[in-house]
Amino acid sequence: MVERRPFDVLNNALNQNVLVKLKGDTEIRGTLASFDVHMNLVIENGEELHGGEFKRKLGTVLLRGDTVVYLSPSSV
Amino acid sequence: MVERRPFDVLNNALNQNVLVKLKGDTEIRGTLASFDVHMNLVIENGEELHGGEFKRKLGTVLLRGDTVVYLSPSSV
Amino acid sequence: MVERRPFDVLNNALNQNVLVKLKGDTEIRGTLASFDVHMNLVIENGEELHGGEFKRKLGTVLLRGDTVVYLSPSSV
Amino acid sequence: MVERRPFDVLNNALNQNVLVKLKGDTEIRGTLASFDVHMNLVIENGEELHGGEFKRKLGTVLLRGDTVVYLSPSSV
Amino acid sequence: MVERRPFDVLNNALNQNVLVKLKGDTEIRGTLASFDVHMNLVIENGEELHGGEFKRKLGTVLLRGDTVVYLSPSSV
Amino acid sequence: MVERRPFDVLNNALNQNVLVKLKGDTEIRGTLASFDVHMNLVIENGEELHGGEFKRKLGTVLLRGDTVVYLSPSSV
Amino acid sequence: MVERRPFDVLNNALNQNVLVKLKGDTEIRGTLASFDVHMNLVIENGEELHGGEFKRKLGTVLLRGDTVVYLSPSSV
Repeated sequence: MVERRPFDVLNNALNQNVLVKLKGDTEIRGTLASFDVHMNLVIENGEELHGGEFKRKLGTVLLRGDTVVYLSPSSV
Repeated sequence: MVERRPFDVLNNALNQNVLVKLKGDTEIRGTLASFDVHMNLVIENGEELHGGEFKRKLGTVLLRGDTVVYLSPSSV
Repeated sequence: MVERRPFDVLNNALNQNVLVKLKGDTEIRGTLASFDVHMNLVIENGEELHGGEFKRKLGTVLLRGDTVVYLSPSSV
Repeated sequence: MVERRPFDVLNNALNQNVLVKLKGDTEIRGTLASFDVHMNLVIENGEELHGGEFKRKLGTVLLRGDTVVYLSPSSV
Repeated sequence: MVERRPFDVLNNALNQNVLVKLKGDTEIRGTLASFDVHMNLVIENGEELHGGEFKRKLGTVLLRGDTVVYLSPSSV
Repeated sequence: MVERRPFDVLNNALNQNVLVKLKGDTEIRGTLASFDVHMNLVIENGEELHGGEFKRKLGTVLLRGDTVVYLSPSSV
Repeated sequence: MVERRPFDVLNNALNQNVLVKLKGDTEIRGTLASFDVHMNLVIENGEELHGGEFKRKLGTVLLRGDTVVYLSPSSV
């Protein structure tokens, strides 16, 4: 897989499981459903984790781009 | 439900119950009444929670977009 | 009351009592006298609260928009 | 006094005593000498307070607008 | 190696191992795969470190530019 | 001294001793050598203070404008 | 040395040793190799210090401008 631009990672990750780390030790895991140029993200079947521990199920969640630290597609 | 753009989540959530997580461990629950391109949100019948615990009823509340971490429509 | 846009809440709240939560656990209560597109707000007969406790009377106070977390018109 | 726009408070407060609260528990008291559209402020005969306690005299001080939380003209 | 502009460091580091320090004591090590003008970065074979200690493998990771403190190509 | 605009304070303070308070309890004292519209400042013969205590001599120092809280010309 | 504009300090410091203080108590020492209008900086032979203590050698390092507090050319 060759990415020419960072947002290609988002395109390639659509409908895939991703881990999103947010500012302030919160993480969201789930399926990437959409994104925009501000890196606003929609995650389906989302779960919230704090300090690596499961906190709660969120279902659909819209993440504001400026709170994102990183997004990593699940490797498996 | 297929979302093409993140803000479709906001459109779909109008008049629905939502959970909004704000920077700094505050959450607002209530009915999404309106939003704009800055993700400024109006919640009706809003309740404020801190650390997951009910703090107070707010009624109508205008949330400034840049304090939003995420918005999640209630799954039920 | 139907709000089409978030700032309609500000228009409807003019000359009404409001609660404004600021970043950093400070709240201002008073009468909304004016606002602009940056959400800069003027509150008359303002009172400052910290952690929900009365701190001091401020009279007229100009709040910078980017410090606002939310504004809620008093429900009564 | 009717303010049509928030910055009218600044115009009305020129040459008057004001209290300026800054991000991070610092306050400046003194006479408002000038301001601009970024809410950069010049205070003459300024005094710095921390936690409500007098810290030091500053004389003339230029405050950067993006550090301002609120400005309140002295009511007396 | 003469760099005329800071982003030349990014060009020179493509397909090389880099260390990226993020705001909040998190570091990512891995291979720089792509970047854009906002300093959004894609790291392949990424590993996350906290306080200098290995935390977990991330594989591909998209880092948001505004969370970057610095990027350093591995010297070896 | 009548200032019409906040930046007149900077013009008047050129080649004068100033105190610059930065975000995060750091202060720089020295002679204001230049500034620009972003409030980037050059201080000559600069000294860094933390919590009001002398920390070290810096000589020439370029301060990034967005870290400035206030600048105060020395009154003597 | 007369600086007309703050960025002249950067021009004058090219290929010189500099101290760069970053937000969050991190400092980088090394040779300034390049910079741009955002104050993104490239330091060669960089060393990272925390709380004034040597932490590690970095070699070449690209510093993101918005994390810079100040840059000071070494006086010797």
